[in-house]
Amino acid sequence: MQSGSGVWHCNFGQSEKATPGRFWKIGEYTALKNGGASLPFQNSDILGRKTTRGFVVEIPMEKGDNFYGFGLQFHGFNQTGRRRFLKVNSDPVTNTGESHAPVPFFVSSAGYGLLVDSFRYVTIYPGTASETGSSDQRRILIEIPNCQGVDLYFFEGPAMLDAVRRYNIFSGGGCLPPLWALGNWYRAYGGSDQNHVQKLADEFRQNEIPVDVLGLEPGWHSHSYSCSYLWNKNLFPEPETMVQKLSEKGFHVNLWEHVFVHPSSELYGDLASHCGDYEVWGGLVPDLADNTAQDIFSKYHGEKFVAKGITGFKLDECDNSDFKRSDWSFPELSSFPSGLDGEQMHSALGLLYQKTIEQAFRERGVRTLGQVRSSWALAANSPFVLYSDLYDHKQFIRALVNSGFSGLLWSPEVRACEDGEDLIRRVQTTVFSPQSLLNCWRIPNPPWFQTNTEKNLAGEEMDESTSITCIVKKFLTLRMSLIPYLYAAFFRYYTEGLPPLRALVLDYENDQPTHSVDDQYMLGDSLMIAPVFRGQPARDVVLPHGEWYDYWTYQKFDGSQTLHLDVPLETIPVFVKSGAILPLADPVQCVKENTIFNLTVYCFGSGAKEITLYEDDGISFDYESGRLNKLTISQNAAGETSVKRDGTESIRYNIREWKFIKE
Amino acid sequence: MQSGSGVWHCNFGQSEKATPGRFWKIGEYTALKNGGASLPFQNSDILGRKTTRGFVVEIPMEKGDNFYGFGLQFHGFNQTGRRRFLKVNSDPVTNTGESHAPVPFFVSSAGYGLLVDSFRYVTIYPGTASETGSSDQRRILIEIPNCQGVDLYFFEGPAMLDAVRRYNIFSGGGCLPPLWALGNWYRAYGGSDQNHVQKLADEFRQNEIPVDVLGLEPGWHSHSYSCSYLWNKNLFPEPETMVQKLSEKGFHVNLWEHVFVHPSSELYGDLASHCGDYEVWGGLVPDLADNTAQDIFSKYHGEKFVAKGITGFKLDECDNSDFKRSDWSFPELSSFPSGLDGEQMHSALGLLYQKTIEQAFRERGVRTLGQVRSSWALAANSPFVLYSDLYDHKQFIRALVNSGFSGLLWSPEVRACEDGEDLIRRVQTTVFSPQSLLNCWRIPNPPWFQTNTEKNLAGEEMDESTSITCIVKKFLTLRMSLIPYLYAAFFRYYTEGLPPLRALVLDYENDQPTHSVDDQYMLGDSLMIAPVFRGQPARDVVLPHGEWYDYWTYQKFDGSQTLHLDVPLETIPVFVKSGAILPLADPVQCVKENTIFNLTVYCFGSGAKEITLYEDDGISFDYESGRLNKLTISQNAAGETSVKRDGTESIRYNIREWKFIKE
Repeated sequence: MQSGSGVWHCNFGQSEKATPGRFWKIGEYTALKNGGASLPFQNSDILGRKTTRGFVVEIPMEKGDNFYGFGLQFHGFNQTGRRRFLKVNSDPVTNTGESHAPVPFFVSSAGYGLLVDSFRYVTIYPGTASETGSSDQRRILIEIPNCQGVDLYFFEGPAMLDAVRRYNIFSGGGCLPPLWALGNWYRAYGGSDQNHVQKLADEFRQNEIPVDVLGLEPGWHSHSYSCSYLWNKNLFPEPETMVQKLSEKGFHVNLWEHVFVHPSSELYGDLASHCGDYEVWGGLVPDLADNTAQDIFSKYHGEKFVAKGITGFKLDECDNSDFKRSDWSFPELSSFPSGLDGEQMHSALGLLYQKTIEQAFRERGVRTLGQVRSSWALAANSPFVLYSDLYDHKQFIRALVNSGFSGLLWSPEVRACEDGEDLIRRVQTTVFSPQSLLNCWRIPNPPWFQTNTEKNLAGEEMDESTSITCIVKKFLTLRMSLIPYLYAAFFRYYTEGLPPLRALVLDYENDQPTHSVDDQYMLGDSLMIAPVFRGQPARDVVLPHGEWYDYWTYQKFDGSQTLHLDVPLETIPVFVKSGAILPLADPVQCVKENTIFNLTVYCFGSGAKEITLYEDDGISFDYESGRLNKLTISQNAAGETSVKRDGTESIRYNIREWKFIKE
Repeated sequence: MQSGSGVWHCNFGQSEKATPGRFWKIGEYTALKNGGASLPFQNSDILGRKTTRGFVVEIPMEKGDNFYGFGLQFHGFNQTGRRRFLKVNSDPVTNTGESHAPVPFFVSSAGYGLLVDSFRYVTIYPGTASETGSSDQRRILIEIPNCQGVDLYFFEGPAMLDAVRRYNIFSGGGCLPPLWALGNWYRAYGGSDQNHVQKLADEFRQNEIPVDVLGLEPGWHSHSYSCSYLWNKNLFPEPETMVQKLSEKGFHVNLWEHVFVHPSSELYGDLASHCGDYEVWGGLVPDLADNTAQDIFSKYHGEKFVAKGITGFKLDECDNSDFKRSDWSFPELSSFPSGLDGEQMHSALGLLYQKTIEQAFRERGVRTLGQVRSSWALAANSPFVLYSDLYDHKQFIRALVNSGFSGLLWSPEVRACEDGEDLIRRVQTTVFSPQSLLNCWRIPNPPWFQTNTEKNLAGEEMDESTSITCIVKKFLTLRMSLIPYLYAAFFRYYTEGLPPLRALVLDYENDQPTHSVDDQYMLGDSLMIAPVFRGQPARDVVLPHGEWYDYWTYQKFDGSQTLHLDVPLETIPVFVKSGAILPLADPVQCVKENTIFNLTVYCFGSGAKEITLYEDDGISFDYESGRLNKLTISQNAAGETSVKRDGTESIRYNIREWKFIKE
């Protein structure tokens, strides 16, 4: 792992006791030097002052600076001039800055990133407001409420991507999911019982629908709002047998829950003195900022579930709510034994919850990848993917594109679908995302059988089911081919802080058209994805400089242009960067411990090129102590190929064939 | 005016310096007594504590208590269990409590009202949250941020309506609009010049479309964002002549503006040292909490406009914005010379602006009624009506129904219309509201000529224009018949604090079905209105106890039932309470100083009944010193009628005919 060099700390007033930095920062840093050459301003240019409302910081900027980030933003991309109110909100329906995972971190095109190290509802004005008499020479304004001072961390560029990478390394490096978690996920019908789940699993295998993870929704709990964390024995009389049987067929089981503890839970008594002073749905709100509460919660999950073969959790409802009636969440005026108040806990809860659950796995030496509804700053190394109940596809993609600025992973999960077209368009996006997920909690049959909920419940197959199934299967299968490539991308996330998914502007900052592209993104080193929405017969695709190959036809395009493409339903625009090596695996139905992937290695364009893949056990933390092979696949300028394997672990990848794409 | 008896003051910690109470309270009050019999709790039951975030107050409640109010709420009615975040927001698109005019005042069915005396973004949890270990025995929680203490005012019942009336009296009593302001308002096309406005006015008179007020939109300014407050001489070369000519035809002129002062304004220099430290649209934000700034702004308006015949203003854009790009408003971290910060100024600005403009009129002894986009607590005696850019008709009506809980007036103005049906449904509501307003700023021709904006701009008449015009004219004319009745209702608002428009639950608190009726309301003493929305062929109407007469057919209905009514386009369900006297005037085209209304007096049902009308000059403040006639019209139990005139002023009302409605 790189050191955290190029990170500068700046303090005003009295530091807050509980902050993301104090909880989770990893990297080293030095105090901000006067005249530091690498930031576009001097220490003395940064002004701080205490106000009645909290603390205000002002930072210089120039006209023309662009600002990106602020976490999982659904409604804006280039945030210049937009007031960003960074509050956790489960219903971010408008462009205020609120989100499931707002993050007080942004990058500036002036060549740096800035983390405001607080759990407060920070407001950031990046060129939004003009001081009276300033002749419109604006500054970045930051307001941190309810505090006596603030800590800031600046992350050097020179490029925005450099700043993002430093931020991710500072967070501990990106997470590395288990290999199986890069396959397809399917969350089963909420009314499922044990038999239904097993039947569904068998059908996937019979029909060769590749699925690695089956998720169970609230119904597995004996009481779910608040949670008992006990199996509902009516629906699941033999849960351990079920998990074991599914495991033998190569399925991982993921369990839904939230953090609010029902009186019938075995955790209730132990947590009663380690919780907030307000309940949620009659359940305790455990103070996960308190190590004891974290240990109690974590230990229970380890013993009751991880030890019995459960490999992940879906952490719901930790993202507050201002809209719902009555006690959907705890008030901001709450207090917790750890000293956090309700405002701070709302910001911290998602990530504290992730860390608590992760601990149950880490103690057993097993990796996990989970789902979560909320996160905050310094989350990069937490193995959880965000999701939402909101459902506009365009907004989902914008959130996806934004996620890479702030150390977040986001799943544009496939859920309700208008029709077959909508289903396909959404499947085409999810398979090209960090987590390929279908959430079918409302329907007993798969959506390719029937997209209409009522008819699905009635068991009525839709007319076009056969053709739709065929296309869906093609894309779920394609996902399996991408696993070695994606795993390599996550390794770079872990080692170099490079997000596996990035807005175009991060890779092509000097290409002016990328500055506002919120519906295309880079996935891994060399794939550029341009999702299509239902009802869209054609779309524009911005190609940055260089040369690009159509993923499907191998047609070559010059960069620095905008293509207008027809987008037939069977395809989604995907382009490969010239100069890339893309390893594609023969698809498997699921990833087992001993799965060996047969690779076809595609070399795009002329010139020297290289990719490094990683081979490890795919499930443990042994890679952290170097138990892995580095497999370097390259082609030199003369066109000669070579493969170099560094390490003595078992072989995971077997190169079967080479293909050379030039015209 | 009644004294403010039955109002109790309660203080915790250090009082805030700037609060609505310190600025605007009028009534007397006594300290909250221990064991006070009239409130449902003891002084010692109310708990207060300082927190990191501000101050928290807890108040007892019982299960089953209902809560109403919180200002101009668009998305909720019975607010029990709803977190209310009381922040001024120009785009209140979701049910958070935010609004153009949130008010930290509510009434409880337990028999009291409560004002939290602050300009802070107060959050109130009326039975929303359950304390850990409380066995779900909830309390009302109130959080006031960024303060060291708080002042509360409790308003005694026993009924909710009593509490509302005390609150309004405490605010100085309700406002009394000038008589002409109860006629119809029409805001002219934004691209209008002087000739267009005069032509429009002439057409109204020729076609007998009754209109009292013509409004000019931003185009009258030489610079409008920010404002110059100077006539655009290209469009309006002779504004004084225009205003005088319009006045001779009986039209009042209302001018649009906002509070942000452009450098080209004559006010700029004087206000430069009395403004906030951030600009809006390159304009100053005058510190209207500072008397000097208020005087400068007010004096200018008095001399330049009021003295020259302008009788009102539309005060736009004083309601913040979190959504819009760049400096749509000033940041909360702003500070003002008066000591208010940006948060407090956002809450206070609407009402400070109203008071400033009102002062220009009061100094000249002339009443006004204006429009405004924001308000706050203790606004009842401010002669301004709220409006919004949002436009859902159902939400408009809900806001109307809610407005009467908190001393606010709201206009469900007619603006863009889907089609002729939508136009008629909206006109049918606005004529039964405190301000009958058509805002046609986007269309050069009246909406009854063409509802489609593009076609209206192109001068293309819609097919059904003749029949639509006929219905619209019928309702605008009906409005003119209601003026004496409405003026009497406003007099009761002024003298007794009785809102002219009230949710059914205020008049019929013990009728359980009224507890959730958010689409019917009482207008004046005895009319109950049930608006209809486009596409609605029928609707349910809740009739409270007693007997009711259909306004149109005189058909009698027993109360305590819900009617299902067909609602043909020509009509809107209106019911008259049995036992009411309803005076209806022969309609006039506009209200002049010497207008005498010929009345038909309708007596509904049997038994003794009475109404008091008021005769004054309709334009000055002389009524405050008793220069008015009280005209008491009554019928005794034996059916004998009588009319008693108390006072020596000129006669305004002439009773032409009596009608007795019984079956």
